[in-house]
Amino acid sequence: MIIYGRNVVKEALKVGTHLKRAYILNSNNLSQEMKQLENQIRHLGVTIEKVDEKKLEAISHSKDHQGIAAKIRDYRYADLENELKKIEKGDRDAFIIILDRIQDPHNLGAIIRSAYGAGVDLIVIPEKGGCHVTPAVLKTSAGYAFKMPICVEKNLSRSVEELKNRGIWVYAAVMDGTPYDEMELKGPIALIFGNEGNGVRRLLVEKSDGKISIPMARKMDSLNVSVSVGIMVFRVMEARRHGNN
Amino acid sequence: MIIYGRNVVKEALKVGTHLKRAYILNSNNLSQEMKQLENQIRHLGVTIEKVDEKKLEAISHSKDHQGIAAKIRDYRYADLENELKKIEKGDRDAFIIILDRIQDPHNLGAIIRSAYGAGVDLIVIPEKGGCHVTPAVLKTSAGYAFKMPICVEKNLSRSVEELKNRGIWVYAAVMDGTPYDEMELKGPIALIFGNEGNGVRRLLVEKSDGKISIPMARKMDSLNVSVSVGIMVFRVMEARRHGNN
Repeated sequence: MIIYGRNVVKEALKVGTHLKRAYILNSNNLSQEMKQLENQIRHLGVTIEKVDEKKLEAISHSKDHQGIAAKIRDYRYADLENELKKIEKGDRDAFIIILDRIQDPHNLGAIIRSAYGAGVDLIVIPEKGGCHVTPAVLKTSAGYAFKMPICVEKNLSRSVEELKNRGIWVYAAVMDGTPYDEMELKGPIALIFGNEGNGVRRLLVEKSDGKISIPMARKMDSLNVSVSVGIMVFRVMEARRHGNN
Repeated sequence: MIIYGRNVVKEALKVGTHLKRAYILNSNNLSQEMKQLENQIRHLGVTIEKVDEKKLEAISHSKDHQGIAAKIRDYRYADLENELKKIEKGDRDAFIIILDRIQDPHNLGAIIRSAYGAGVDLIVIPEKGGCHVTPAVLKTSAGYAFKMPICVEKNLSRSVEELKNRGIWVYAAVMDGTPYDEMELKGPIALIFGNEGNGVRRLLVEKSDGKISIPMARKMDSLNVSVSVGIMVFRVMEARRHGNN
């Protein structure tokens, strides 16, 4: 898999990802930041290939490479069972989000970034019907996808059941749910968010413990899904920090 | 100006925008929603041209047309002075956002959508250095840009002064500000958000009454700007609804 962008490569290195090869823009005008990054990669014994703009674009399949790309083994997804055990051993209540078939890599990337910032423990995505972690997702996540455990599950309904069996309250984010400021948001929680066009599938809504909404000042259909997730996860974080709602 | 997308055309009609001409996908398989929209446009006496997929893409400069495009006069920006007078006559405290050179049309569109939902009265953008309301912005805003007053100002510093002179508290959203949960968010407020790469310009930060931040659970550089705006504006809305912070 090819990754690109300065932050993405930096975050990959921070978590010890093995780079098979790195591609750096051939320029006499490299920034200090880039020189440091190049040195760091060289010290790891990774082969660095100097390439021109056009080649770097072709390697990255994007113009958004910021002068660097690298080849890694595939992105490593987390294992649900393992992650749940880790959470149970920790001293904080579980905070999980389930994404029901997000389509747009930029939305998925932005969601991963927000989830990391808000202290989400784990993101669950479905095997089929939605975007996985691609180079574009890694780029939009600013590399935080490397630090955020993401599990791919065959059947989200069964994942919801699994979470409920472990005492986690599962709420589906929908338009006609209870406004979040009227809900108790403490304790172990999982939030389900639906995709850009259709929202959360009915079966998943029915399986969950309740429905949650963002209160609106004006009547409208919906917000961008990555914005909705951002608002909700920071709202949950705040409710937890202050020990009230 | 060409607009495209079902919601965009619908919202344009709701606010009484005059369509010079409409372009609808030539198909025997139009949805009920599309047939209604076509009838509505025909009733207004607007010429409808039936076009094929390829032509509609060329007209829209996008694949995201959802079967419909239309020609309108340019997008009508609002006048700052007028809008401030309207707000002063109203019974609610002012709630304004200032965008310091947002680059990405998708971010601007998503911000407009969130601002509408959170009850923001007015968005101020600069004449130069940032994205204006383009067809792509209208599309991402789901048409809400037609319902949201947006002012273009030559000099954002002077706009900040103007707002302060009118008793509005202006806060710059930055990484090292006061966490929003430690701030008083009632009263007339304007929030300044910076662009994707550089944040709010220093001069604007210095001109403002204070700095505000999103509290994070984990150390990180920043969130996507449209997500940050969403989190902040809904946080302000909630503080106002509950009359406390």
